[in-house]
Amino acid sequence: MAQMAWVNGVYVAADEARISPFDRGFLFADGVYEVTAVYGGRLVDMERHLDRLERSLRELKFGTMPDRKELEEAHRKLVDTNGIDEGYIYLQVTRGAYGGRDFVAPDKPRLTVFMFAEKRALIDTASARNGSRIVALPDIRWARRDIKSVGLLAQALAKTEAKARGADDAWLVAPDGHVTEGASSNAWIVTKDGEIITRALSNMILAGVTRHALFDALGQKGRKITERSFTLEEAKAAAEAFTTAATGLVTPVVEIDGVKLGTDESNRGKPGAVTRGVQKLYYTAIGADVAKAAPFVVG
Amino acid sequence: MAQMAWVNGVYVAADEARISPFDRGFLFADGVYEVTAVYGGRLVDMERHLDRLERSLRELKFGTMPDRKELEEAHRKLVDTNGIDEGYIYLQVTRGAYGGRDFVAPDKPRLTVFMFAEKRALIDTASARNGSRIVALPDIRWARRDIKSVGLLAQALAKTEAKARGADDAWLVAPDGHVTEGASSNAWIVTKDGEIITRALSNMILAGVTRHALFDALGQKGRKITERSFTLEEAKAAAEAFTTAATGLVTPVVEIDGVKLGTDESNRGKPGAVTRGVQKLYYTAIGADVAKAAPFVVG
Repeated sequence: MAQMAWVNGVYVAADEARISPFDRGFLFADGVYEVTAVYGGRLVDMERHLDRLERSLRELKFGTMPDRKELEEAHRKLVDTNGIDEGYIYLQVTRGAYGGRDFVAPDKPRLTVFMFAEKRALIDTASARNGSRIVALPDIRWARRDIKSVGLLAQALAKTEAKARGADDAWLVAPDGHVTEGASSNAWIVTKDGEIITRALSNMILAGVTRHALFDALGQKGRKITERSFTLEEAKAAAEAFTTAATGLVTPVVEIDGVKLGTDESNRGKPGAVTRGVQKLYYTAIGADVAKAAPFVVG
Repeated sequence: MAQMAWVNGVYVAADEARISPFDRGFLFADGVYEVTAVYGGRLVDMERHLDRLERSLRELKFGTMPDRKELEEAHRKLVDTNGIDEGYIYLQVTRGAYGGRDFVAPDKPRLTVFMFAEKRALIDTASARNGSRIVALPDIRWARRDIKSVGLLAQALAKTEAKARGADDAWLVAPDGHVTEGASSNAWIVTKDGEIITRALSNMILAGVTRHALFDALGQKGRKITERSFTLEEAKAAAEAFTTAATGLVTPVVEIDGVKLGTDESNRGKPGAVTRGVQKLYYTAIGADVAKAAPFVVG
């Protein structure tokens, strides 16, 4: 449950926050969002999230941008007011409300900006420790997955379906058989030779901030990442797999459509060694004490 | 501008209507909608709209349905209270608000139902009289266009782009070159031989209520409709074209991507004779006095 929220510059208790149902975010999904992780009370990669927010708004031709300084301050204040040590800040910007309904966007939008904070464990989670079981579902989303819009119905349906099937999350598969990404994460596989593979950026996937941060962190270690598409069959045959996301950080994938990943009986269905290394690298990058991090202590 | 609205059983002034920003309609576009035309104070095909609403909700596995009798009564009361002679009633149902954000849908949704009324001329409009100019744009929507979800960002972008290019509306074209439908209407063409063609129903288009009503009305006249896909090039070479929608009723299309439709200089760029017949037929079906209908009086 969220605690304190922020609507157009006003801090309110989350359960008292209100918007107009004429908001274009509600009528048309005409809006974008970002989720910035908070770890140790610090905002993780907030500037990259705000850069991507502005890109999404530009792609949708919003024209007007929200005040960046104000957004930065609201992020910090929501962290402080809610006493968030570990969790996230959610930010949504829509083209606003006009008291009527017209598909055609107004020339000068009156933005609605909505934010809230939520406490949540990011590192000491069952999926970070034990990995997640994935089901593959058809990717039925629109063609502009590079825009982080609130048109998330396909993703919500996929995650709901995954849970209904007893799995933890969904990966989405394009009609050509290639995995695009997770329902709310980027998808990665590791081959038996230790090659780390993730799909190249395009309109087909979101340019993940955590994905970006991992490229930086792995690059500094001299570790190469291969950017290419991979099929669902290739993923099932991979030695390891994992996902990256702002609040999921690096989450091992241990099973896809009932197939336990691994190279032999010693590691099948368990988080792989390369994935554990990637987790440590990212946890370190956001300032966590890896020696005490649950996935390794418990593992 | 809307006047009186209805939110979860409560009538309120439209500009005072409020919902929670945690509503899944706002966060995920997890909702569906219907627009029922009002002509002569009567609701046009409300039952078919409510049937389709329920189908959309079932496809999205809402489980819980809004009370149909209550929706019917609210439609009638909104018509009366707002004194709507000509216009429409808008209805949106979302999976509701839960004070937090989770892609996974709740087992038992607490629905949000939002309705409003708006007065609007349906028959005496410039586009009904003179036809509309269309631009063709790539259909970038998700794969379930048969579900009338509020995930309408692609449609809003298309209509905004059409207006920016000086046109009246957009038709959407699949990657295979075939027209799917209009940005908020079904698309029809008429060949030089008078054959009336519209795309067959599938997940690629919405099963339009006005489309359905025209099948009935034309069928009663012994007039055949060919259900098949047509390409954008075929549409540009057509003798006539038109769109159908709840509030647009039957709207002649006179131009596609700058190409004026017609068979010779006498009719090029003007609403065609078959289209005029279809307009008359539909206007009659909803109880209009065709002898006084603006498109024919002015034409």
